[in-house]
Amino acid sequence: MAEAHARPLARLIEELQKLPGIGPKSAQRLAFHILRSQEEDCRSLADAIVAVRTQMRFCSRCFNFTDAELCRICADPRRDNSTLCVVGEPSDVIALERAGVYNGIYHVLQGLLAPLEGIGPEDIRIGELIERIKDGGITEVILATSPTPEGEATAQYTQDVLQESGVKVTRIGRGIPIGADLDYVDQISIAHALEGRTQM
Amino acid sequence: MAEAHARPLARLIEELQKLPGIGPKSAQRLAFHILRSQEEDCRSLADAIVAVRTQMRFCSRCFNFTDAELCRICADPRRDNSTLCVVGEPSDVIALERAGVYNGIYHVLQGLLAPLEGIGPEDIRIGELIERIKDGGITEVILATSPTPEGEATAQYTQDVLQESGVKVTRIGRGIPIGADLDYVDQISIAHALEGRTQM
Repeated sequence: MAEAHARPLARLIEELQKLPGIGPKSAQRLAFHILRSQEEDCRSLADAIVAVRTQMRFCSRCFNFTDAELCRICADPRRDNSTLCVVGEPSDVIALERAGVYNGIYHVLQGLLAPLEGIGPEDIRIGELIERIKDGGITEVILATSPTPEGEATAQYTQDVLQESGVKVTRIGRGIPIGADLDYVDQISIAHALEGRTQM
Repeated sequence: MAEAHARPLARLIEELQKLPGIGPKSAQRLAFHILRSQEEDCRSLADAIVAVRTQMRFCSRCFNFTDAELCRICADPRRDNSTLCVVGEPSDVIALERAGVYNGIYHVLQGLLAPLEGIGPEDIRIGELIERIKDGGITEVILATSPTPEGEATAQYTQDVLQESGVKVTRIGRGIPIGADLDYVDQISIAHALEGRTQM
């Protein structure tokens, strides 16, 4: 039996398998698709992969992904700068924006507290959050980390450190099933959770 | 509500969604994964995508994909050059090779007859197959196109045109469920099908 694939094909299959949720069979299907597509389309995909890594950076204010100094939300003058929603990841911002009911701004922690994995407050953007609150102008902080153990611990910790600031701190409301990943919750549940938020 | 993604991210998600089996949610997950990976890994994936398209071509003998003049199977002196297995697609070669019981060579038709879609004998590599048989040295042709309507029609047509050549023509044996795509059949069924092939 000869080796199944010529080298460039084997290499692409190997690279594709490194992506999350792509097994050997999917990787082969994708590789054959790419092999058959127009060279222009291949280059367009390849360019997009490199561009996303080289052109994207973190918003200097909220730490969401952006291709400019400020992300689109922070740069939008129509957003309510007095309400700050704290989330774990940029994908959570997208999930909340999809619900279409929130008009405030965000703070992306870029992680959640996970003591067992050695992730403490200094490893996520909590220090930067405290600075933003100190700078003034924010009257309410909505803790919208996912209701997982890590998300709950992060919300609790954040509430503790913000207690002295005098700012109103709320936790995203019920409506999100416990243990669920915010990024997978339907838009209506997210809208309910935002509307039904409670003071901590 | 601001636009959900910055432009480079939106563009990558759009490109990923063009791939088969990748929906909006998977595309977003993959894009965020790529965004978070090392720049070196991104470039490696991007290079592999372009390389597969620019370095791969068709084997001048069997029309399988290859990165050289001849594919690895045609170039392998240990393969039995008197037995020729006819398949529709390069992925079928991989499926047959995985079974590990075949030591002959291949001919990839690069398609199957589909009159309703306007795909006739002149659109696939049947002419080249006839030439290979005429060149001599081949004593058996195994028709291993998938047992779908198109694969059966292609096998029947190929048998008809090869009838006068005097070469033994066999059809891949039972063991493959009717209607199944060869590329998805388990290795043992493929091994049985090869062993139980019958003369047409």
